[in-house]
Amino acid sequence: MSGSSFGTHFKMTTFGESHGEAVGVIIDGVTPGVELTEADIQVQMDRRKPGQSSVTTPRKEYDIIRILSGVFEGKTTGAPLAVMLNNTDMKSKDYESNRRLFRPGHADFTYVQKYGHRDHRGSGRASGRETAGRVAAGAIARKLLERRGVSIVAYTKEAGGVKCETFDETVIEKNPMRAADLNAAERMVNRVEELAAAGNSCGGVVECIIRGVKPGIGEPAFDKLDAELAKAMLSIGAVKGIEFGAGFAATTMLGSEHNDGMDANGFMTNNAGGIVGGISTGQDIVFRIAVKPTSSISLPQQTVDEDGVEHTIQTIGRHDPCICPRVVPVVEAMACMVLEDLYKRHTALHD
Amino acid sequence: MSGSSFGTHFKMTTFGESHGEAVGVIIDGVTPGVELTEADIQVQMDRRKPGQSSVTTPRKEYDIIRILSGVFEGKTTGAPLAVMLNNTDMKSKDYESNRRLFRPGHADFTYVQKYGHRDHRGSGRASGRETAGRVAAGAIARKLLERRGVSIVAYTKEAGGVKCETFDETVIEKNPMRAADLNAAERMVNRVEELAAAGNSCGGVVECIIRGVKPGIGEPAFDKLDAELAKAMLSIGAVKGIEFGAGFAATTMLGSEHNDGMDANGFMTNNAGGIVGGISTGQDIVFRIAVKPTSSISLPQQTVDEDGVEHTIQTIGRHDPCICPRVVPVVEAMACMVLEDLYKRHTALHD
Amino acid sequence: MSGSSFGTHFKMTTFGESHGEAVGVIIDGVTPGVELTEADIQVQMDRRKPGQSSVTTPRKEYDIIRILSGVFEGKTTGAPLAVMLNNTDMKSKDYESNRRLFRPGHADFTYVQKYGHRDHRGSGRASGRETAGRVAAGAIARKLLERRGVSIVAYTKEAGGVKCETFDETVIEKNPMRAADLNAAERMVNRVEELAAAGNSCGGVVECIIRGVKPGIGEPAFDKLDAELAKAMLSIGAVKGIEFGAGFAATTMLGSEHNDGMDANGFMTNNAGGIVGGISTGQDIVFRIAVKPTSSISLPQQTVDEDGVEHTIQTIGRHDPCICPRVVPVVEAMACMVLEDLYKRHTALHD
Amino acid sequence: MSGSSFGTHFKMTTFGESHGEAVGVIIDGVTPGVELTEADIQVQMDRRKPGQSSVTTPRKEYDIIRILSGVFEGKTTGAPLAVMLNNTDMKSKDYESNRRLFRPGHADFTYVQKYGHRDHRGSGRASGRETAGRVAAGAIARKLLERRGVSIVAYTKEAGGVKCETFDETVIEKNPMRAADLNAAERMVNRVEELAAAGNSCGGVVECIIRGVKPGIGEPAFDKLDAELAKAMLSIGAVKGIEFGAGFAATTMLGSEHNDGMDANGFMTNNAGGIVGGISTGQDIVFRIAVKPTSSISLPQQTVDEDGVEHTIQTIGRHDPCICPRVVPVVEAMACMVLEDLYKRHTALHD
Repeated sequence: MSGSSFGTHFKMTTFGESHGEAVGVIIDGVTPGVELTEADIQVQMDRRKPGQSSVTTPRKEYDIIRILSGVFEGKTTGAPLAVMLNNTDMKSKDYESNRRLFRPGHADFTYVQKYGHRDHRGSGRASGRETAGRVAAGAIARKLLERRGVSIVAYTKEAGGVKCETFDETVIEKNPMRAADLNAAERMVNRVEELAAAGNSCGGVVECIIRGVKPGIGEPAFDKLDAELAKAMLSIGAVKGIEFGAGFAATTMLGSEHNDGMDANGFMTNNAGGIVGGISTGQDIVFRIAVKPTSSISLPQQTVDEDGVEHTIQTIGRHDPCICPRVVPVVEAMACMVLEDLYKRHTALHD
Repeated sequence: MSGSSFGTHFKMTTFGESHGEAVGVIIDGVTPGVELTEADIQVQMDRRKPGQSSVTTPRKEYDIIRILSGVFEGKTTGAPLAVMLNNTDMKSKDYESNRRLFRPGHADFTYVQKYGHRDHRGSGRASGRETAGRVAAGAIARKLLERRGVSIVAYTKEAGGVKCETFDETVIEKNPMRAADLNAAERMVNRVEELAAAGNSCGGVVECIIRGVKPGIGEPAFDKLDAELAKAMLSIGAVKGIEFGAGFAATTMLGSEHNDGMDANGFMTNNAGGIVGGISTGQDIVFRIAVKPTSSISLPQQTVDEDGVEHTIQTIGRHDPCICPRVVPVVEAMACMVLEDLYKRHTALHD
Repeated sequence: MSGSSFGTHFKMTTFGESHGEAVGVIIDGVTPGVELTEADIQVQMDRRKPGQSSVTTPRKEYDIIRILSGVFEGKTTGAPLAVMLNNTDMKSKDYESNRRLFRPGHADFTYVQKYGHRDHRGSGRASGRETAGRVAAGAIARKLLERRGVSIVAYTKEAGGVKCETFDETVIEKNPMRAADLNAAERMVNRVEELAAAGNSCGGVVECIIRGVKPGIGEPAFDKLDAELAKAMLSIGAVKGIEFGAGFAATTMLGSEHNDGMDANGFMTNNAGGIVGGISTGQDIVFRIAVKPTSSISLPQQTVDEDGVEHTIQTIGRHDPCICPRVVPVVEAMACMVLEDLYKRHTALHD
Repeated sequence: MSGSSFGTHFKMTTFGESHGEAVGVIIDGVTPGVELTEADIQVQMDRRKPGQSSVTTPRKEYDIIRILSGVFEGKTTGAPLAVMLNNTDMKSKDYESNRRLFRPGHADFTYVQKYGHRDHRGSGRASGRETAGRVAAGAIARKLLERRGVSIVAYTKEAGGVKCETFDETVIEKNPMRAADLNAAERMVNRVEELAAAGNSCGGVVECIIRGVKPGIGEPAFDKLDAELAKAMLSIGAVKGIEFGAGFAATTMLGSEHNDGMDANGFMTNNAGGIVGGISTGQDIVFRIAVKPTSSISLPQQTVDEDGVEHTIQTIGRHDPCICPRVVPVVEAMACMVLEDLYKRHTALHD
């Protein structure tokens, strides 16, 4: 199959292209009898949607979701939930002029190589629009995880070279960068606006913290908690790396420094990021992802068309100069999907 | 299931614990009619086995593999290949004294939390010994990939704080660190021996380069080539992070710097690491993994036992002061598994 | 997961309940570059839809499908196809009076046992309405199979005790029973109308013949062609049995009678039904399924409610007195799904 | 992959050919902490092994199993269990003379078509020998199911045209046919010996009864309990059909006859065979399978060789004139695998 499903015991299957009729998702394996409304999902969609501020694309998608199945009289039935969003405010004509050109950093070249032809409008299936379905599914997973006492939060730790120096979780949703440090957020916004004005873009680092996961979640050997999270995160378009706990810094540490000792109160440090041997320790699970600068920039770039003829291209369309704040809810959604799946797997094993 | 299988169209399932009777693997989906001998597998096992030098554990496992099925008169039959290795030279008594203690950095605590009880001898299922089956399976995948013109090489790029400054592929198998720079290798060995003598350990960075993959390999949205590689690599015990192409460095680059432009000769740079939109570009695929310092050190560390009583522990046993050189063949094996699987998936899609 | 997906290399995932907002399906793994229109699908939907004749339910669903994704400029893109049908002409109120009663032969009791609560309107997820998504997916599989030279036809071989005595493929779509014998069809219709008038129902036998499958399709040991077809058919609501080739008659045959010998022209007989060792022989694949009498009858029946209190129930609603003719396109659809999946698996193995 | 795995939440993967070095199975997803010995498995292997009586092959395989992993100090660890049997008493030379001939009823022709070449010795992977791994896995599933109060029994209901007229479960293991009626058993033995002496073979019907399954087990829409059982049974070599409850007899019943009404004591009849809507009702689960006559007979038969040249073949080797009694433990094993898997899936859904 072409990779549109994620999860084994709790599974989502997404469909839809940027400029098609609709995007959506089927979530299979939802615990029956759980109260769920469209508002539970919509609140997460609104965090992901474009047009929220100067640092994101002005494109307005009006991501109004509909639950098509799986809920009856306000409760999940155990049948698959289908959630759909119609595509609106699509300006497909924006893409006509560059139709046969390979936009640098985009999947245009690889899609043509893979499929022979492609939907050139707004990246088609490769568009960030596909993540709308993920966020809808993640909202449901989040509801299920809340019953378990699990909470997930992600934020922009660094963007455009500006780093958060403090961590204040309460401010994340109060600044357009979704940074955890208001001072840094202000400097990030300035930097991003400056780059946007210059027709350029920047990347950043998003950190995710998962609290309340009981020890024992994750399946050796191949389906380790960190392995599943890594796959989930690298499946997000602009992500180029991931690290857990001390991460790449661990490569220059000594064993005596990196090992997390224990005393009667539990672990004394958390260099491991809450996962040892692929299984949760009960500590906070901490990972960071590397987000590349947005590929769509309006500066002229060199490329070729489908015949190999050289062109200078200026990507037209409405794009995010820094995708980090909009990646945050997608990271959370994918983390939710991984955890709910692994919880169910753990329970099934012990059944 | 408990996570012992990897792959969808080309799949391995491993079994076995460090100090059990045997370890092994079943590989399902092997192309029929391909010439294969036990020597094809043994050569890779010999690269992984312990006891090769001063920088690895002196434990000798005599990893002599046997093919139990799936090959007839020197050719694969299309039936599953089972490959087995008996465990030998096990010193289970080494582990008795610390039987109820949680060794820092090891999966002892998490296994007890997950399973209730555990095989304490040499980490049981969580042992690096489990990777023997992976290397056997990877050797078969490598044979299949060779027919496609694909080659895979990994090496220790950094260890104990010492970095390779040059890249000479021909020296990798000629130094005990599997570094690609003989000068750096010498300094790495010195540093590792020094740490080993002090009862400590260190981590490092392993880089993998895959050549000859045609454009178009990898499946959006969830089973992207980089997502699958990330899962594969994070499923290896000591790995705490992965990055593709420019990786974390991309987070401080601008879009105009990071985008790989094209001219009539193809891509002009490879910041993407050979993967765009989760699909191979035809360029070299390049990624690096963060390897943590080996958890087993003989310096005293603070821990608790299964009742929460505090102890000082000194990990006895024969261990690798730096696991990087032995991780190299495992990284290659897992990369081979991912690629052969995705090649077959690509072909099936177009069928 | 809750069992809403079918297939491994070519996969469908269905959603929707009888009286929910919509039903539909996502098909993943569709070969890119194949011409496909909504009409290709609609023609099969029209064969499945209710209200076609006196022997089927007068309920009208107006099964107008929409393709939401995966097709661009008339060709499949390789991205997942989502196909949706809005539910219309639903008379949910019909079900209110018996809301807490377990209708005999229906999944009411088992759904309450499994899920705790249920959508009582028209069987919810257990409704035959779920098969609309299957037929849509099957129509796409059929397009792909046509390129391979494979054709699939099913028909009502027996209904209400009346058997086809001849086989004329050209008449199947020309009689309301989808029988292959016009004389038998007339007697079947009479019998079914008689039973319907009496508030009763009957079952029958549907036979499926698949032509043009090359030898070699099917995967031992567990995913044999007949095993996959058996699962596919038993997943259809009213099906209670399946047999291949000589089937249950083989149980009283001798080896010398049952074995299909070969001469220079190939197989001399086809007692095996075109499958040996789980792999296609290249002959016609032939199987028959047992269809139980429709559970919904208007004769009074004894049952209990959710509290175990006894009631007499008369199932109200518009139902099929004999479901065989409407099972026919579902059987064909499922057979198409199995075959396209196994073709792709065969190709992937040999890649 | 080539179909060597079965199950999703509780999974087995088998390997091995009739005349290879060994056969075996990996079982993944085994509940940790369950007491398990090799004797628990051996007792089932002994029921399956050849050479038990005049009605089975005199070939002696000495199926002595070894557990290679997954059990520590007498209890399952949660890691995959590998169970292996060495192949012994193989008379590969028996097969040399007919090496290039297609034995009627065997998978010789289809394997050559599928794989290009084949292991001709004793049917290779297509041999009934592959079921040894299944029986080992099923023995473990049975242990897990016993904790749930589930019991599984199968028996030969009919063989060589002789039917059981009574059902006495206590005699099944006390007669070589594994019939449930000693009088019928005696007549079956006479008939089978007579056929064996004449170089012929016969088929029969095996019935399986599963008791103690709680209501609610099975997953709509595709992974229905009956669909999974059908796949499991049709994956057994000689099986050509399956029916549940009234089965094919339901095709001539009326709705008023077939529907199972309920009163205050529960279901009043069990025409459904304990499964409605793909979900267990809590009643006995009852199904029957059609077993074809053994393909290997010593009467001369007409066939061709790999070049299409016609030959008369007499299958040499030691074979079962009626495979029913040896199919019985395989049927039970597969039923155990299906049920334990679906129990775990049910629990995961509700988690």
